[in-house]
Amino acid sequence: MNFSSKLLEDAVKALSTLPGVGKKTALRLALHLINQPDDQVEYFSRAILNMRKEIKHCKICFNLSDDAICSICNDHSRNRKLICVVESVRDVMAIEDTNQYRGTYHILGGIISPLEGIGPSALNIDGLINRVANEEVEEIIMAISPTIEGETTLFYISRQLQSYKVKITTIARGVAFGGELEYADELTLGRSIISRVPYSSISEE
Amino acid sequence: MNFSSKLLEDAVKALSTLPGVGKKTALRLALHLINQPDDQVEYFSRAILNMRKEIKHCKICFNLSDDAICSICNDHSRNRKLICVVESVRDVMAIEDTNQYRGTYHILGGIISPLEGIGPSALNIDGLINRVANEEVEEIIMAISPTIEGETTLFYISRQLQSYKVKITTIARGVAFGGELEYADELTLGRSIISRVPYSSISEE
Repeated sequence: MNFSSKLLEDAVKALSTLPGVGKKTALRLALHLINQPDDQVEYFSRAILNMRKEIKHCKICFNLSDDAICSICNDHSRNRKLICVVESVRDVMAIEDTNQYRGTYHILGGIISPLEGIGPSALNIDGLINRVANEEVEEIIMAISPTIEGETTLFYISRQLQSYKVKITTIARGVAFGGELEYADELTLGRSIISRVPYSSISEE
Repeated sequence: MNFSSKLLEDAVKALSTLPGVGKKTALRLALHLINQPDDQVEYFSRAILNMRKEIKHCKICFNLSDDAICSICNDHSRNRKLICVVESVRDVMAIEDTNQYRGTYHILGGIISPLEGIGPSALNIDGLINRVANEEVEEIIMAISPTIEGETTLFYISRQLQSYKVKITTIARGVAFGGELEYADELTLGRSIISRVPYSSISEE
């Protein structure tokens, strides 16, 4: 591409680092931004930079948070004896959108995937064990995507927790096998939390 | 969407103002940016803001430029007696990429479209007439998309220029009717500039 402006070229280069954004799309976005009011582009740019600089991971559940402890862990009306274990922040948002769950969360930050070199130590599993060991946790709901990697992660965590007196459940398989949690509709996802089943019963079947 | 972080929410809101980016895509982009190194997100944010704040329109041809006069108008090796009239900056880039054209440009900033309320006065047509009146211009190549609006614009400009001794040509119709200039391949676009035809001959056919 032949840019007559270095400023434009830099912005296109920056925008094309986004996932799924090629050079032509980046150019389209850049030209769109040039035509926006000054203060709106300033807001755009600041919002992204502020997020990157100031966002934290909650010390308890590893959720994204503006403070050291996230708003969910800080909410005393929520049931702290119930922990829903998920892969990512997007899953927390998807479950919160169902309005069916009033417990807390634990975000693993990924799943065990030997092919991609992600072992248990790369995930926030120790934090989960600590919570079970030191807090009064009655039940762990595993809301992990039902893929092979997900099942491996589920198995690993259930082994780590077997010495503790905590019930381990999984969300009901209303979510299609191989499907990603975040794309499930709210009704299906909400129901799969309500009709969750004890983990061991699945392996016995 | 249920955000646990105001910082994340603001960034998602900002990103979803981009054309073709919905809430889910914006969230995906935001989470991607959170996982990037600090300085890369700073570069991303600064590149966009700098572009918006400092980019100018060339005083001569209205091309996007870092300075008051763009690099093409400032290039003394280019033929200033030849002006290629285009709709937008993207068309300039597409034509430059063909390496077939060594004249200058004039960017209208749109086309006449009564339906969208864009009249001739909203475009940089006066600037073009001034150039023809005050500079030694021999030929105007109209590289406007061959749509109804494009033809209207072409007709309007040719009328405005009829009292001047300047040849008006259009790029050859190698570009499919109804097609957008920027999506044409380089060969077709390059050839359509080389085999341009006098404007009047088309209407006489």
